[in-house]
Amino acid sequence: MQFDLHPNFFNKIVITDLPLCRVLLEDERNYPWLLLQVTKIMDLPLEDQHQLTEEIDKAQHVLWDTFEPFQLNVAAIGNKTPQLHIHIIARFQHDPAWPNTVWDHPIRERYSPEKLYEMQQLLQTNFEPQKAKSKK
Amino acid sequence: MQFDLHPNFFNKIVITDLPLCRVLLEDERNYPWLLLQVTKIMDLPLEDQHQLTEEIDKAQHVLWDTFEPFQLNVAAIGNKTPQLHIHIIARFQHDPAWPNTVWDHPIRERYSPEKLYEMQQLLQTNFEPQKAKSKK
Repeated sequence: MQFDLHPNFFNKIVITDLPLCRVLLEDERNYPWLLLQVTKIMDLPLEDQHQLTEEIDKAQHVLWDTFEPFQLNVAAIGNKTPQLHIHIIARFQHDPAWPNTVWDHPIRERYSPEKLYEMQQLLQTNFEPQKAKSKK
Repeated sequence: MQFDLHPNFFNKIVITDLPLCRVLLEDERNYPWLLLQVTKIMDLPLEDQHQLTEEIDKAQHVLWDTFEPFQLNVAAIGNKTPQLHIHIIARFQHDPAWPNTVWDHPIRERYSPEKLYEMQQLLQTNFEPQKAKSKK
């Protein structure tokens, strides 16, 4: 899968490529936060929308099985970054923004380099078929 | 379609029923804001997820054609209201929250009764097949 990244995505961590989307990890330690970056920018045909639905479903299951959150937030916003992408965020009742949304919350904390590498490895493993049940 | 409404939905305005979802209007005059309330609460089977994708697509086209916004925000959050629902919100560069998200924005303004009735009539008309091109 080849496509140009919008500059706002340059500092995200690549997890894997699915048929329609590139899966990226947001460097934000308070919430396990994936981005599904859609390769085609304008109106998706219905067939691709169904493929997107399945990839969102996959990403939700990976986050749910890996982190056992209280809730998942799924959103397409794109006000600040015009390239189509979907947020999938694992939420906990003890996270700093709960029960509000995280996008404009003032608390932002990056992972340590070691933790970021560990998260990348864990998520890459759990995106592989038959391996979505590993716990952190 | 018969199902029980969570109390947080009691004050929303019903626009129409689609095969999977009830379409509700949020009484918030700054952003044309629809809620697709899903009738089944737990994990949707893939077939229903595809139906949901098509109903979200329909709601996006209705908002886009009716209000000609700059962007659409689409999200499943559910932190405060446990019944599954999807937000579809028409955003403008001149709206009070732009470019931030609207969920926790402090400005909230209800429609006047007359404007609310007008919005309901307009959206009901534009959800009917072959009528999604009417402008406000």
